[in-house]
Amino acid sequence: MPYYIGDVIKDYKRLVIRTPEDFKKSGVDVKIKTRAEDVDPKKGIVSLSDGTTLPYDILVMATGADAARLGLPGEDMEGVFFFRKLTDALKMKSFLDSKPCRKAVIVGAGYIGMEMCEAFRTLGIETQVIDILPRPVLRWDPEFAKVVLEELGKNQITFFPGTKPLSIEKGKDYALRLVTDKGNLEADLILIGVGTKRSNELAESLKLKMGESGAIKVDFSQRTSMNDVYAVGDCCEVFHRVIGKWVYFPLGDVANKQGRTAGQNIGGAPSEFPGVVGAQSFKLFKLEVAATGLTEEEATKYGFQPVSTIIAGLPVGRPMAKGEKLGLKLIADKPTGKLLGAQAIGEKGAVARINSLSVALWSGLTLEQIGYLDLAYAPPFGGAWDAIHIAAQTLARKL
Amino acid sequence: MPYYIGDVIKDYKRLVIRTPEDFKKSGVDVKIKTRAEDVDPKKGIVSLSDGTTLPYDILVMATGADAARLGLPGEDMEGVFFFRKLTDALKMKSFLDSKPCRKAVIVGAGYIGMEMCEAFRTLGIETQVIDILPRPVLRWDPEFAKVVLEELGKNQITFFPGTKPLSIEKGKDYALRLVTDKGNLEADLILIGVGTKRSNELAESLKLKMGESGAIKVDFSQRTSMNDVYAVGDCCEVFHRVIGKWVYFPLGDVANKQGRTAGQNIGGAPSEFPGVVGAQSFKLFKLEVAATGLTEEEATKYGFQPVSTIIAGLPVGRPMAKGEKLGLKLIADKPTGKLLGAQAIGEKGAVARINSLSVALWSGLTLEQIGYLDLAYAPPFGGAWDAIHIAAQTLARKL
Repeated sequence: MPYYIGDVIKDYKRLVIRTPEDFKKSGVDVKIKTRAEDVDPKKGIVSLSDGTTLPYDILVMATGADAARLGLPGEDMEGVFFFRKLTDALKMKSFLDSKPCRKAVIVGAGYIGMEMCEAFRTLGIETQVIDILPRPVLRWDPEFAKVVLEELGKNQITFFPGTKPLSIEKGKDYALRLVTDKGNLEADLILIGVGTKRSNELAESLKLKMGESGAIKVDFSQRTSMNDVYAVGDCCEVFHRVIGKWVYFPLGDVANKQGRTAGQNIGGAPSEFPGVVGAQSFKLFKLEVAATGLTEEEATKYGFQPVSTIIAGLPVGRPMAKGEKLGLKLIADKPTGKLLGAQAIGEKGAVARINSLSVALWSGLTLEQIGYLDLAYAPPFGGAWDAIHIAAQTLARKL
Repeated sequence: MPYYIGDVIKDYKRLVIRTPEDFKKSGVDVKIKTRAEDVDPKKGIVSLSDGTTLPYDILVMATGADAARLGLPGEDMEGVFFFRKLTDALKMKSFLDSKPCRKAVIVGAGYIGMEMCEAFRTLGIETQVIDILPRPVLRWDPEFAKVVLEELGKNQITFFPGTKPLSIEKGKDYALRLVTDKGNLEADLILIGVGTKRSNELAESLKLKMGESGAIKVDFSQRTSMNDVYAVGDCCEVFHRVIGKWVYFPLGDVANKQGRTAGQNIGGAPSEFPGVVGAQSFKLFKLEVAATGLTEEEATKYGFQPVSTIIAGLPVGRPMAKGEKLGLKLIADKPTGKLLGAQAIGEKGAVARINSLSVALWSGLTLEQIGYLDLAYAPPFGGAWDAIHIAAQTLARKL
């Protein structure tokens, strides 16, 4: 019975699976293009779309999430893309290889939208971005969105805020026309990146307990409410260490960690995934954009009393600076002095600062402590007082 | 009495001092080229080398350290330099501006030696380095020293290990000749960078208690054993959080933090400097070289049971890698699983990893925790499993 995960997992330390060939060698039977239609937890049987069934000892729900659709008329036309899976990228690549694309319109200024801006411009494609919200990347505060907008502008990308897409139709000068409440945009390619949508059907048919967020409820071992059923990745919740609550936070690195935790527990090495602090980042042309923890708005929502500061720092020591900037915002809880979140943006050093601050958040450090952290000082990499110290000390004075 | 620090410090929040002019404006009387010869703590009086005296309420010892000398015959010849103060750098600059320098020999392969390698090569000066030790930058383990040596080689710098300088004399083909136990090296310039030496005279005349390291003993508020006498910077000890002991660790960023702490306490804002974890770094041409915490040798010396691992990681996500490498070594304590130290080297991302790990060290995290830290993942900045995670999980298996 090669599909008993327990049979394989015994040797998990030596098992490296990267290709279908590896799977074959490992003895794991991978059924592609097959959907799990139904699960009978009493009998331990999964019914598949090819009409067969699979018995199981342990079931891992890793059903992920799909790209959210807007249900626009014309959403299925050729040249309209959603981005979620490897196959989505391959489809777009073959589209771009097969015909000249002069112009792209991106619907949604989140991660996918921002990252694809750079990809399109690198290919020489004129690019425009619309979003129903007033600014791009809402996770970052307006001061940071301003820098993002400037970077888009520098790269000849127009951003249309507060713009609602209504439908897609055939264009006149370009293949497609996106009709919005603010007018029409024509393009050869339209990419819709407006977040994710989970399909909970299988979980619900199993009667797994769902969390407040609507995703599958798990514990620190990735166990669901049902015996012998684990869940990992974008279909389940994750513990947020700053809030102290289970939330929905579908990111690739989190899914990896949950998968490892479930695998270890299934393989007999008890293991817990201690949760996230909300670290995230993306690259936009020359900019690093990063954040961790909570925004002020989230902090208020979760009962904290946030205070914040923004500093214009340097990613290197002052004598070495060649005009680089590093914007750093810290958010802390007034009564406890603990860090709650941080945002950073700059040509370099933004992700590095956010990572150090993520470890500080993880450990529950206060501004007082962060103001004196021991960082590896050398002028090419920062000042004797790093931007982190300066921001923490500045904010500490507001407590 | 403008030299009463208390008079000035009242306004410390608004006081920014960068130039002698700022000092004048601030009302602080700065006596340059004046040595404090003696202190009478009972009367609260400092005797100066210009024959005058200064009364004080509070005394801050910030006597620093000097560049160590080797006492070599010829050490005072023109073209021989020690590097410690701004004036040392200015002297070398005017020497280099005044006459052509074809070749430099550096004695000592520590921070000063390594950083000056790059400076000399940038000026087109042929450069050789000798050290009495078997490898450069002893703070890093042999695997890392090997990469440092390769980088030196790529930049046409020859390193002579285990070489003892004996004397300096007039050269034949170049202005100077360094005589060593392994032969002679001629050069137009010789830089001696072999560490620092404190002058403890004043502290001893004051009968300040000295620590085990031989530097002035202070507490977390930077107070010495004597009422109203503070000490900061390279003349005093600092608390090492990993070892839990007071040590001598003379680095610029530490001195800054101690100065701030003393200033706050003197100014009436009680403050403690929580100490260091040993973070340090330098840039060598294209390489970032960084370390934090303890080496295995130090860990053993201080009673830990170190285990370690080295991984060859990536500073970016695998699909984005263009041949960059990131060497990362972690050292942990076998019985507790706590991180004790880390070393990193690479074209990019080495300092960033060491800074995150420094925060982990500061917070006393275990390998188990570090293996699941939430870092801001995006492929341009690291893998979904960062080098930090991989190293921590690899080492955790040795516990």
